Amino acid sequence: MRIEGKEYRTIWYEDNVVKIIDQTKLPHQFIIKDLKTVKDAINAIKIMEVRGAPLIGATAAYGMVLAVQENNSSEFIKKSGEELIKSRPTAINLKWAVDRMMKKLSGINSDQILNVALTEAKEICDEDEKFCKNIGINGLKIIEEIYNKKKDTVNILTHCNAGWLATINWGTATSPIYHAHKKGIPVHVWVDETRPRNQGANLTSYELNEEEIPNTIIADNTGGILMQRNEIDICMVGTDRTLSTGDVCNKIGTYLKALAAHDNNVPFYVALPSSTIDWDIKDFKDIPIEERDPEELSHIVGLDENNDLKKILIYPKQSKVLNLAFDVTPAKYVTGLITEKGICKASPDALKKIFR
Amino acid sequence: MRIEGKEYRTIWYEDNVVKIIDQTKLPHQFIIKDLKTVKDAINAIKIMEVRGAPLIGATAAYGMVLAVQENNSSEFIKKSGEELIKSRPTAINLKWAVDRMMKKLSGINSDQILNVALTEAKEICDEDEKFCKNIGINGLKIIEEIYNKKKDTVNILTHCNAGWLATINWGTATSPIYHAHKKGIPVHVWVDETRPRNQGANLTSYELNEEEIPNTIIADNTGGILMQRNEIDICMVGTDRTLSTGDVCNKIGTYLKALAAHDNNVPFYVALPSSTIDWDIKDFKDIPIEERDPEELSHIVGLDENNDLKKILIYPKQSKVLNLAFDVTPAKYVTGLITEKGICKASPDALKKIFR
Repeated sequence: MRIEGKEYRTIWYEDNVVKIIDQTKLPHQFIIKDLKTVKDAINAIKIMEVRGAPLIGATAAYGMVLAVQENNSSEFIKKSGEELIKSRPTAINLKWAVDRMMKKLSGINSDQILNVALTEAKEICDEDEKFCKNIGINGLKIIEEIYNKKKDTVNILTHCNAGWLATINWGTATSPIYHAHKKGIPVHVWVDETRPRNQGANLTSYELNEEEIPNTIIADNTGGILMQRNEIDICMVGTDRTLSTGDVCNKIGTYLKALAAHDNNVPFYVALPSSTIDWDIKDFKDIPIEERDPEELSHIVGLDENNDLKKILIYPKQSKVLNLAFDVTPAKYVTGLITEKGICKASPDALKKIFR
Repeated sequence: MRIEGKEYRTIWYEDNVVKIIDQTKLPHQFIIKDLKTVKDAINAIKIMEVRGAPLIGATAAYGMVLAVQENNSSEFIKKSGEELIKSRPTAINLKWAVDRMMKKLSGINSDQILNVALTEAKEICDEDEKFCKNIGINGLKIIEEIYNKKKDTVNILTHCNAGWLATINWGTATSPIYHAHKKGIPVHVWVDETRPRNQGANLTSYELNEEEIPNTIIADNTGGILMQRNEIDICMVGTDRTLSTGDVCNKIGTYLKALAAHDNNVPFYVALPSSTIDWDIKDFKDIPIEERDPEELSHIVGLDENNDLKKILIYPKQSKVLNLAFDVTPAKYVTGLITEKGICKASPDALKKIFR
């Protein structure tokens, strides 16, 4: 998609380095950063220079490329994979991407291994882009249906950033929105600010602005009353891990919006490529929920009156803070899953039927 | 209650001026401000130097005192009352306090009117303090009951600031907590940050710290998963307007917590003095919901590395923002109302029985 009118992907390999858009600097600064070592890739995932389940999967894949480039001994590659998987706990895509790379690299000669790694990482990215595009084509039907009934702007609520910046291109939850916009269907997006890291405001509103899609940032607290007032036609969010039960683990606060949607008969859809499905865990209470640095809540970065980036403390100095990054929306509150293979119910049978 | 070990009320009259704690400067600076004219009082309410339904009622009462002090013609007093009522739209206490003052002042001679006004404003404050104390004594029973079953720290979630800073003293939702703490019951408060103005972090956590009550600030998004994990025993919030139907209008985001409480069988109580009951409006959709300046979302104030207060822009410059200040929690999600007269169901019959 576009930034300042130019087409980008979120990650690519060029001149022996991996290039990423440093998402910790958006929306105030647009900076392309080089990752030169697997440590760089691990760090980029940890401090969220890249984030979003599909994109951290892709970064892990390219992290494996960088590992191979540094030291193609099987010990180093194996250890690198393990460290990449540990870099963040909740998104399943990390493990999925590393496992896929490891499988591809196993038994490959050292003179071919870098090429094989590069090809597979690129393939993971191409596949993600294709999957996200298909999610868009599939989800477009839902937006079209609402538009055909309403004959007026379709108001869509989204939480966090499941936009193209969370993937390689198109996004998951935003892909149907981009497709609808390209088709000329009038859409307006309610963007949850998404505390504590404000990825809704910083990333989703930013990328929608760049694609000239009307959007309004709201506090995370606001979705409920907007639904009571019929100002939201549909909710569309992404996911960091979808269980085979249909339970959806996504950015903290998603569950609260699903409850409000349920209470107000607003359809609540989750968009995902199959790489975010966890076929193993059955009980959502077993999903590891990441706890991050309290400073992400107590401090915040923005532009001061001189347009300089400033970090300020916004809480009482002595207050204790807890920073959980994800929550789980039980399947019963999910109207449907929008996947690359089509739309299905959030149920074990429906998921099995479509993917197995 | 205490700030830096010294007892305060939130508003008082001294040396011909009304003294308030400037709540826009907390938690970073503790500043006592003078209100000298009714315009000062209106402005203090508008820009939220004072906030919280009971306290803005009290400020309106003292605003009437300042009006009488400036110009005791009945036209000026009437006009001042009308302007005070218009200073914020959602909290019903404004109208309640002005009406009560107007009734008391009607027909009073000009040589007595200032004294009568002062006595009534003080009476409104004393009554609010007494009511809040009684709310605490009544709500204490609920906390005690949980403690007697659990025999361990009672975890209470609260939203926004329904603390003593929202009233004259004690607070509404916090009063049972203060009473429990004084009785030696171990309590821990989960404090919703409460975007956009962060009154949870800035005021509730601040005042709990000053009273040495354990508390943890969380993003507004976090309450849901904490309830799923059984880490919240009870929710206690305040209200800006309670309908005779039992529907509760409170700080935006309250409704989302009530839904999560309902979904996880966590009791959800609303604490209120009877001055916040609206006996007229029957349909919650008729409650005027205040829309405030988008800058309250897009900009934020805090301390920089030199301990100087800085205001920074945290959103993309061109993004649109909507800032609604309140939402409504339907009565069916409210376990009970804690009032100065006792605890009752959030229903027309129960409210009528206790108050009429």
